[in-house]
Amino acid sequence: MIIELVNTGTELLLGQIVNTNAPFLAARLNELGFSVLYQTTVGDNRERMKSVLKTALDRANIVITSGGLGPTQGDITKEVTAALLNKPMYLHEASAERIQRFFTEHRLCMTDNNLRQAMMPEGAQIIENTCGTAPGVIVEQETTGKVIINLPGPPHELAAMFEKSIISYLTKRFGVQGAIVSRVLRTYGLGEAALEERIKQYISAQSNPTLALLARNGEIHVRITARAASETESVQLINELEGQIQPLLNEYIFGIDEETMEKSVGSLLLAKKLTIALAESCTGGLVTSRITDVPGSSQYLLGSIVCYSNTVKTRDVGVPEEIIATRGAVSQETAECMAQGIRERFQTSIGVGITGIAGPDGATENKPVGLVYIAIDGSAGTVCYEHYFNGTRMDIKHRTALAALNHVRHYLLNI
Amino acid sequence: MIIELVNTGTELLLGQIVNTNAPFLAARLNELGFSVLYQTTVGDNRERMKSVLKTALDRANIVITSGGLGPTQGDITKEVTAALLNKPMYLHEASAERIQRFFTEHRLCMTDNNLRQAMMPEGAQIIENTCGTAPGVIVEQETTGKVIINLPGPPHELAAMFEKSIISYLTKRFGVQGAIVSRVLRTYGLGEAALEERIKQYISAQSNPTLALLARNGEIHVRITARAASETESVQLINELEGQIQPLLNEYIFGIDEETMEKSVGSLLLAKKLTIALAESCTGGLVTSRITDVPGSSQYLLGSIVCYSNTVKTRDVGVPEEIIATRGAVSQETAECMAQGIRERFQTSIGVGITGIAGPDGATENKPVGLVYIAIDGSAGTVCYEHYFNGTRMDIKHRTALAALNHVRHYLLNI
Repeated sequence: MIIELVNTGTELLLGQIVNTNAPFLAARLNELGFSVLYQTTVGDNRERMKSVLKTALDRANIVITSGGLGPTQGDITKEVTAALLNKPMYLHEASAERIQRFFTEHRLCMTDNNLRQAMMPEGAQIIENTCGTAPGVIVEQETTGKVIINLPGPPHELAAMFEKSIISYLTKRFGVQGAIVSRVLRTYGLGEAALEERIKQYISAQSNPTLALLARNGEIHVRITARAASETESVQLINELEGQIQPLLNEYIFGIDEETMEKSVGSLLLAKKLTIALAESCTGGLVTSRITDVPGSSQYLLGSIVCYSNTVKTRDVGVPEEIIATRGAVSQETAECMAQGIRERFQTSIGVGITGIAGPDGATENKPVGLVYIAIDGSAGTVCYEHYFNGTRMDIKHRTALAALNHVRHYLLNI
Repeated sequence: MIIELVNTGTELLLGQIVNTNAPFLAARLNELGFSVLYQTTVGDNRERMKSVLKTALDRANIVITSGGLGPTQGDITKEVTAALLNKPMYLHEASAERIQRFFTEHRLCMTDNNLRQAMMPEGAQIIENTCGTAPGVIVEQETTGKVIINLPGPPHELAAMFEKSIISYLTKRFGVQGAIVSRVLRTYGLGEAALEERIKQYISAQSNPTLALLARNGEIHVRITARAASETESVQLINELEGQIQPLLNEYIFGIDEETMEKSVGSLLLAKKLTIALAESCTGGLVTSRITDVPGSSQYLLGSIVCYSNTVKTRDVGVPEEIIATRGAVSQETAECMAQGIRERFQTSIGVGITGIAGPDGATENKPVGLVYIAIDGSAGTVCYEHYFNGTRMDIKHRTALAALNHVRHYLLNI
């Protein structure tokens, strides 16, 4: 079954928002075995939206729209859908009441406009919106058996409606189409070319499963995608290929699918029953925040000190003043003292010290923006790494955080 | 001039990556006065890509593709473009040499595949890629004067090529089309409905400039978009409407365009010559990290303590043990002691204490996941706010961070 996603909304055409509905729907639909072959974005313009929907209906069996179900005059997706399929619009009483209730419950004043959300194409299936006021709509074209599904634009409303109602409709109405399954091996530390070189025999040999390399915020993801009659068979195909690739990438793979670097560090700390504390300067708490993104991180993260000023570095983390005076706040020695100091103060198994120049200012003749020192102190002694990162202040903060977490991961793997 | 963006790449159809090229190109093109009326995404399939490009060329004057210029067999965008416009492909010597140089310089092994990147449609204009190996291509259809522009898929390569070469080509070749300019008023604290209610007369009256409300990670953005012959005239139109709306939203507006909440807090601290330190528990350093995202934040942020464990709360931030024992670690009293403790310890003008339950675990009978206390201590005394946030652990962390920064902003506005 071929699906086309039609995203409506002038804000998309103006580039003022990133479209996250399309990847969400595409990923879920593929998991269900539907083929999303086209995605189109069009603005809130009747004529153009109608022609886009017509094209979509010509080349796909199922057209899923997102957006344009709201109360404003700019919300025209339902009307255009109805017009294309020659269905008159009528006021759907139940929806009208739901909307009225919603406004009463949330003590909001309701305008007549809001009732536009209750106008429905004749014969349409109305889909409840559990997170908002705009119901979804499913309209079938009798002559062809093709279907247009109108979903709301707000991502959480669209996702909830899709999971709660659309999946069951699609699988009932069209049956399951076999399954495309993907697995991502997340790697860090190897360049894309070097990584490709290591597994090129599998990349060139690929048919099913397919292999793709994707660079993602400093990580390189190896995506294995298999298609088979059932999810089990697809998974089996993936397991076989992963078994062949894994030894070639080995220590560079830190996680599978949604397993982030901080999750993998957390799992190691838990498994080894170790605790950690950080002294962060240039990262300003970002590394600690990432560590605490993981549920249960309080079992191993005791706390951290963001020592942005030198006073805090010396008074609260215990970096000797003369080290800062002679070596500088951004130096291997300071990073090491930060790691040792925070570990001692917080009585943890692991201490981490991070200091660097995030920029855009603060560079000196021999210390450029992007120079970062990451030190780790623990039962295996103190190690320190020097990095020169490129990019904006944000880039440097994020690359430093990722590198720091990976250094901790390797330190933990070796004790 | 009507433009259609055609994004190629099976990973987009599989929903494995979010498309950031389309919003980037759309935003820049609109600023230049071009109308992006359609965006289409298609996979690496010759037949479907050709039909999509044909449809695009029928309804637009300029078609800009992204992706599919790489060395692999799956990279077919140039070939399909050439086939559609009936141009044979040939090996472009200069590009071949550039690619060979690139591999030598970066000490990478080059495969014959890489030379596919040097195959060009006859008569095409070759655009240098300053960030990668795949050159861009501009091909004109003599009969219609319409144009297809092939850009590489990696966002930084695409952006660099667009800024460096494509803008000048478009403006020379098609002339500037007048200017669409947008300005965003960033608000926080008013619900979308309440906000719409306040400015509804302007929303219903809108024609040029237009007004749009966009909910963005807890903020609501009021986007004013004007179109006029020149940028100056567009800006003038925006200024007039902003002048009318501003008094109605007033203290809820914290920033304009790219001015984030942390930037606005930083500007207030700088202007009032004040310093700040935070004691963060449930946010794990996220608020401090956001504050340090702003260049020059070291002028007002001295440091913070992430006091995840109760030991750190008492020993390092000075929260009395009995407060935690009697009121609990997540309580107004603890938050207030954290704010006062960190302010005293770090000798800052402002101290902030944040404690809560980020979930998914940790809830008690009368303390649900999402319960957060944010306290601020300063010359105006200690204040504390209680919040009940919804969503995932990450949602709660981010909503807490935003609320905390906004509370600090209001505290600063009133001293």
